[in-house]
Amino acid sequence: MPLIQVQLIENVFTPEQKQEVITKLTDAMVAIEGENMRSVTWVILQEVRSGEWGIGGRALTTEAVHALVSATN
Amino acid sequence: MPLIQVQLIENVFTPEQKQEVITKLTDAMVAIEGENMRSVTWVILQEVRSGEWGIGGRALTTEAVHALVSATN
Amino acid sequence: MPLIQVQLIENVFTPEQKQEVITKLTDAMVAIEGENMRSVTWVILQEVRSGEWGIGGRALTTEAVHALVSATN
Amino acid sequence: MPLIQVQLIENVFTPEQKQEVITKLTDAMVAIEGENMRSVTWVILQEVRSGEWGIGGRALTTEAVHALVSATN
Amino acid sequence: MPLIQVQLIENVFTPEQKQEVITKLTDAMVAIEGENMRSVTWVILQEVRSGEWGIGGRALTTEAVHALVSATN
Amino acid sequence: MPLIQVQLIENVFTPEQKQEVITKLTDAMVAIEGENMRSVTWVILQEVRSGEWGIGGRALTTEAVHALVSATN
Repeated sequence: MPLIQVQLIENVFTPEQKQEVITKLTDAMVAIEGENMRSVTWVILQEVRSGEWGIGGRALTTEAVHALVSATN
Repeated sequence: MPLIQVQLIENVFTPEQKQEVITKLTDAMVAIEGENMRSVTWVILQEVRSGEWGIGGRALTTEAVHALVSATN
Repeated sequence: MPLIQVQLIENVFTPEQKQEVITKLTDAMVAIEGENMRSVTWVILQEVRSGEWGIGGRALTTEAVHALVSATN
Repeated sequence: MPLIQVQLIENVFTPEQKQEVITKLTDAMVAIEGENMRSVTWVILQEVRSGEWGIGGRALTTEAVHALVSATN
Repeated sequence: MPLIQVQLIENVFTPEQKQEVITKLTDAMVAIEGENMRSVTWVILQEVRSGEWGIGGRALTTEAVHALVSATN
Repeated sequence: MPLIQVQLIENVFTPEQKQEVITKLTDAMVAIEGENMRSVTWVILQEVRSGEWGIGGRALTTEAVHALVSATN
């Protein structure tokens, strides 16, 4: 406790970024709940296939997410 | 909001049918909640391996589902 | 199979609308997968407390959703 | 995308802390994926009843978690 | 690891039975994976409101489940 | 009802063990709720990639779990 389950579209995050998701989300929770809770703070990642995540009825692809992400840099 | 998470046994639905699941479930929700909610209506699909979905303790396979589905036509 | 899990913010949908969500989502799936699958098509609703659903880091309340929904009528 | 679902034992986190969970987890993700993804980063909280979360077969209560948390200060 | 998430219709299981669900499911997993995994075997229960669990498009109520259960005794 | 969703790290359980998880968890539930509920007791398995399950911020790998499991024999 707590349990954090994260769903991502496949191949948007690199393996390194996925490790960062685990550490950063854990650290964010521990900053709120206290260091003693670290050992019972779980973060589980699940990837969803490109095109199998609908927003407003339109299927989101890995490429579309990359385009959105890169538009920020 | 709303979030709709759909689990399916692998290889039962074609890619086209999976797109239909996204659009039809979204349309069904929007028909109830109103068109303004479309942009915040999410549908996420996750496939489960054949034989890793138990009903009554018996593992359901892709082939068994195909047999059940085709019996309708 | 299939399993459809729907999360909603509390008190946005009336009891009648929630029944409609169950029937309409089931019908939408059965229209794709075939009538034989109806008996193994599950729809489960879970409500989330007002203010405990974040979009972009901002907590969404029941009132905010009602405002968005009613803007459509 | 991404979707972050957080489960907590009831009455461990104050309403203010729960808002912090939403903002801090969103900020942690956006720091990895880029600011453009903020609007499609969802965080959903669900509370679990005291005594209905088992670790190693032993039910965890709200009181037990408070004792663990406060041991850190 | 493993994580077991159980959804039940509200007020079908007594508090004692829900404790049994935690211990019996944990013991069942540990019998397969080995005793060393006990400390990282989690079981989380979530109740669903009566009438908000659809099977084949028909909403299942607590009373209906009680009737089904008691028919076994 | 009930629905049991089990998440496992990939390649820790053999195919035979995964079948055992389905049968043993179903039997454990039926022992509590009664035999009549067997047909509506679902168990769904989902595997998580090695290294994508964080405990305390540290990513758990298949190898690490095998080492922990085998330490029991």
